[in-house]
Amino acid sequence: MEKIESVQNARLKQWLKLENKKGRQQQQAYLLDGWHLVKEALRAGIKLKVLLLTADFRYTAEFTALTDPAIETIQISTAVAKHLSGTATPQGIFAIAELPSESLAIPTQVHGAWLLLDSVQDPGNIGTMVRTADAAGFSGVVFGQQTADLFQPKVVRAMQGSQFHIHLFKGDLTEWITKFKQQQITVWGTEVSPQAKNYRSIKPQSDLALIMGNEGNGINQQLLSLTDQNLYIPILGQAESLNVAVAAGILMFYLFQAD
Amino acid sequence: MEKIESVQNARLKQWLKLENKKGRQQQQAYLLDGWHLVKEALRAGIKLKVLLLTADFRYTAEFTALTDPAIETIQISTAVAKHLSGTATPQGIFAIAELPSESLAIPTQVHGAWLLLDSVQDPGNIGTMVRTADAAGFSGVVFGQQTADLFQPKVVRAMQGSQFHIHLFKGDLTEWITKFKQQQITVWGTEVSPQAKNYRSIKPQSDLALIMGNEGNGINQQLLSLTDQNLYIPILGQAESLNVAVAAGILMFYLFQAD
Repeated sequence: MEKIESVQNARLKQWLKLENKKGRQQQQAYLLDGWHLVKEALRAGIKLKVLLLTADFRYTAEFTALTDPAIETIQISTAVAKHLSGTATPQGIFAIAELPSESLAIPTQVHGAWLLLDSVQDPGNIGTMVRTADAAGFSGVVFGQQTADLFQPKVVRAMQGSQFHIHLFKGDLTEWITKFKQQQITVWGTEVSPQAKNYRSIKPQSDLALIMGNEGNGINQQLLSLTDQNLYIPILGQAESLNVAVAAGILMFYLFQAD
Repeated sequence: MEKIESVQNARLKQWLKLENKKGRQQQQAYLLDGWHLVKEALRAGIKLKVLLLTADFRYTAEFTALTDPAIETIQISTAVAKHLSGTATPQGIFAIAELPSESLAIPTQVHGAWLLLDSVQDPGNIGTMVRTADAAGFSGVVFGQQTADLFQPKVVRAMQGSQFHIHLFKGDLTEWITKFKQQQITVWGTEVSPQAKNYRSIKPQSDLALIMGNEGNGINQQLLSLTDQNLYIPILGQAESLNVAVAAGILMFYLFQAD
C-alpha cells in the first residue's frame, strides 16, 4: 500500500485545497472525514477516488464488505490525518469523493415534502437542516443561489451523510415555487409578522414546500409574497427568536405526514 | 475615556484569559461579544464590570437609555476588537460581565417545564438548547456534572442572551429527578429503543422534565431507568439520528403547553 507520511507530500497538498470552493471545483472532489461519512457514501454507491487510512484504523467486517478493493487506498501518518481533519481527534479514515453535479434541473414531477433554503449562511445550520430533512422523510432540499457552498467541510460534517439519502438541488427559488404551485403543492414561508399564521393551526400534509430564510434577515420579501401562506412559531419565553435549524426541525416534523 | 490600542495591553491580556475556564473562575467574569448580548445583560440588570467600544460604535438612543454612566467604559482599537472576538467581523462592543454562581441548590418548589442535559458535549448544541428552552417557555435548564462549561465563548454565542431569561443550574441529575418525582412532575427521557414511546402519543403538559443526552451515546443508562417514560422521535428517512439540539427543539415545543 502506498504511504504518505509527510505533510509536505504533493498529493496531500492537493487534498488540502478541497477545503476551499475553488479547489473542490478544480478537482471535482470533496473530502469525507470519518467512518460514518465514508460508510454512507459506500452504501449509496458513490464513487470514491481515494481512501486514506492511518495505520491504527481498525478494519471491521462491515468495512471489508462495503469497500471495493479496486479503490486506491493509501496509508497516512497520524500527522497527515490531523492536517487533513477539521476535528481535534480524527478517526483515521478519510475518502476523496466525486463532487456531485450542482445545477440540476427541476424534475418534471415533484411530490412529497421539500425544504427550500433562502440565503442561509451558517454552514452548521445548512448541514443540520439537510440532516433533519432526511430524518423527517423529506424528498429534497433546494438551495437558493445565495446559500453558502454545500460541500464545504462544516456543511459536510453537519449533514452526517444525508447528502447521499435525499435529493439536493441548487436553483432559482422563484422557479421552484412556480413549479410547486403548478402541481397544487402548498408553499409555506416562515416569517415573524402579524400576517403570519401559527404553525399549529395547520393540518399536516403529505405534499408541501417549506422555505427557511437567512439567520438575521429571514426570507427575501419577494419570495414571501409568492408563498401560499407564511407561518410563525409562537415564542412563549423571552428569547427573540429560534435558531433557524431548530425552527426548521420543529416545522418539518410538524407539517409533514407521509401518506 | 480610557483607550486601549495595543494588543500587548495588560488588561486586554487578562480579558483574553476569559476564553478559558480557569481564567473565568479566577476573574469571576466572562465576555459578552456584540450589542445583542450586552443589551440582554443590561435589560436583565446584570452587573457589567467593563464596557469596551470601538471608535466607530454607533451610540443609539437604546444604548444610552440602558447604559449606566457609572460603568467603566474603554475605547478599544479595531485590532484589539478583532483579538477579543471569536467572530471575523466583530460589532465593536463587548462587556465583561460577572460570572453567575454555578452551584445553585434545587429550589424547594419546582414547577413548569425543565430541560435536563446529561453529558452534552458540543458548545453550540448546549447554547442552542438553552435558547430554545427560553423560547419554548421553559422555567429552567439543569446541567449534569459532565456537561461542558456554560460560559465558554461558543456556548455564550449560541445562547443569544437566554442565560439572562431562564434559570440555569448545575447539579446532580439524579437528585433533580427525585425532586421532580416528589412533586408529581413527569420526567421524560429520550432513547432510541423499542421500549421507548413515540413522542406524538404523549399529551402536552404544563409541568414536565425532559432529559437530553450525549451526542454519541445518549443518556446514561442509570438515569434512563429513573424516568417515568422514555420517548423517541420516529425517523422517516434514512438519517441515523437527529442533531441533539434539533431533537430537543421538536420535543420541547411539542410536550410543553402553558396553563
